[in-house]
Amino acid sequence: MAFRFRPVDASFYDLFAESAQHLVVGAGLLAEMLADGTDREAVAQRMREAEHAADETTHAIVRRVNSTFVTPFDREDIYNLASGLDDVMDMMDEAVDLILLYEVGQLPAELSNQVEVLQRCAELTSAAMPRLQAMKDLDEYWIEINRLENTGDKSFRQILASLFSGTYEAIEVLKLKDIVESLEGAIDAFEKVANIVEQIAVKES
Amino acid sequence: MAFRFRPVDASFYDLFAESAQHLVVGAGLLAEMLADGTDREAVAQRMREAEHAADETTHAIVRRVNSTFVTPFDREDIYNLASGLDDVMDMMDEAVDLILLYEVGQLPAELSNQVEVLQRCAELTSAAMPRLQAMKDLDEYWIEINRLENTGDKSFRQILASLFSGTYEAIEVLKLKDIVESLEGAIDAFEKVANIVEQIAVKES
Amino acid sequence: MAFRFRPVDASFYDLFAESAQHLVVGAGLLAEMLADGTDREAVAQRMREAEHAADETTHAIVRRVNSTFVTPFDREDIYNLASGLDDVMDMMDEAVDLILLYEVGQLPAELSNQVEVLQRCAELTSAAMPRLQAMKDLDEYWIEINRLENTGDKSFRQILASLFSGTYEAIEVLKLKDIVESLEGAIDAFEKVANIVEQIAVKES
Repeated sequence: MAFRFRPVDASFYDLFAESAQHLVVGAGLLAEMLADGTDREAVAQRMREAEHAADETTHAIVRRVNSTFVTPFDREDIYNLASGLDDVMDMMDEAVDLILLYEVGQLPAELSNQVEVLQRCAELTSAAMPRLQAMKDLDEYWIEINRLENTGDKSFRQILASLFSGTYEAIEVLKLKDIVESLEGAIDAFEKVANIVEQIAVKES
Repeated sequence: MAFRFRPVDASFYDLFAESAQHLVVGAGLLAEMLADGTDREAVAQRMREAEHAADETTHAIVRRVNSTFVTPFDREDIYNLASGLDDVMDMMDEAVDLILLYEVGQLPAELSNQVEVLQRCAELTSAAMPRLQAMKDLDEYWIEINRLENTGDKSFRQILASLFSGTYEAIEVLKLKDIVESLEGAIDAFEKVANIVEQIAVKES
Repeated sequence: MAFRFRPVDASFYDLFAESAQHLVVGAGLLAEMLADGTDREAVAQRMREAEHAADETTHAIVRRVNSTFVTPFDREDIYNLASGLDDVMDMMDEAVDLILLYEVGQLPAELSNQVEVLQRCAELTSAAMPRLQAMKDLDEYWIEINRLENTGDKSFRQILASLFSGTYEAIEVLKLKDIVESLEGAIDAFEKVANIVEQIAVKES
């Protein structure tokens, strides 16, 4: 709603910060979705709203790229960064959606490891966006995201191994595998964003 | 076969129209594949032929991009549009192929909702391609495709929920999930084509 | 390790040859992984090392693109080729990883058909890279890769059909399907590399 009143001179940096801020909200909703006794339907509804808000920000960036003569860095890179951030949101939204849709009873506790990684990635990404303007102190951001992605990858593999260890029914494995894969996909999408930022920084330096 | 005799001066617009026309054929074959008592082997064979014909058109576009000095819009965009159209065909071909390969007995009736969406998308895309030349009246096309994609997404989610509702054996879920995912992938691929057209129209306007 | 001592004037061609050489090593390890009575843990460890070495080469290419004023062909194409080669390695690494992780007992014999295709693709790609310099005799390379990809596709479909033929438990199907899909993904990634090389050759000719 508030986005309707976005000032016409909001810079690309503001819009990227806004986009990353949606990811902080989304990762928080994902954590809520995993909590015991949560109203999943309600959380999923808020997630859908957050996803729509993120879409609006992405469209605002694309419109601005198309209507601005001088851009702070390559149009292509702006577009890549915007859609990279949007992809993270889509993956987190998918994870929430699958948890609701598949009516999974008890979620394995290990999933929270992946969601913690996602929350940390969202915070780091959100903190890094404003630093794009000065193109400074960005390397610690992408190094840390890469480290987190490695941690997430280890969790992902452990969860997969445990899913196939024989304690779960095939149909349950199918459901949970889809969910952990979409969480892993969201973490990978954060890494992709960090790679895009690195590319931009290297070019501009 | 007819493609051998393509006149050397067939324009990019003609080739895009030809490419989209293959999708109308493909979506029709998909509908036939779902019909009761159909000869699946025969339909799959015709689908393979349609897919090869679509490949030829895609190659013709790429060859033309590489050999033409002045193109109606960015080379990159022509290439994206051509491969976007080709991706739709590949996904529809995959769906047909999986239905044959997995020897699924009775297909759930809900699949026809997805295929109807695909047929409508193919017709709209085919009707929109000739309008690229004047870059006019394209917005109704991409708006309608986006609306259809939303409808398709709802069908997809309903089918997934029903697959996991407990009425299907795990092995049957595995098969059907692959099939409905490839149908959903084809619908998404149509939306991607519409997004590419939107991008081109915005740039050129 | 040796990569630390890479001479500063190693050309792009040398780096691409090095990158493809990692794929020959990777495909060989994949073949070892399938052998009866192999120490899977040890092979997977060597695969991880090969994958890291491949990453280093990819980074070396990207660094060089970013620091070189004149490149032998489009920066974009160099980047695409480098990441295309890297993608093959990632897919082969994933296949090895899943075999270890899922603790699959006996692997179906048909998997070796896919791995043979991968070994052949790796050799052909490795032999083709040095020919990039003269841009000569590359068409036999990409034609053969396309032919191999077709063969691989037929194997893939046969394996899928046999997985779903009723002899395997659902949970086993899930595991094996992931593995054969990652092998198929690696073959597709080789085809993508060949397509990129074809694009480059067409442009430069």
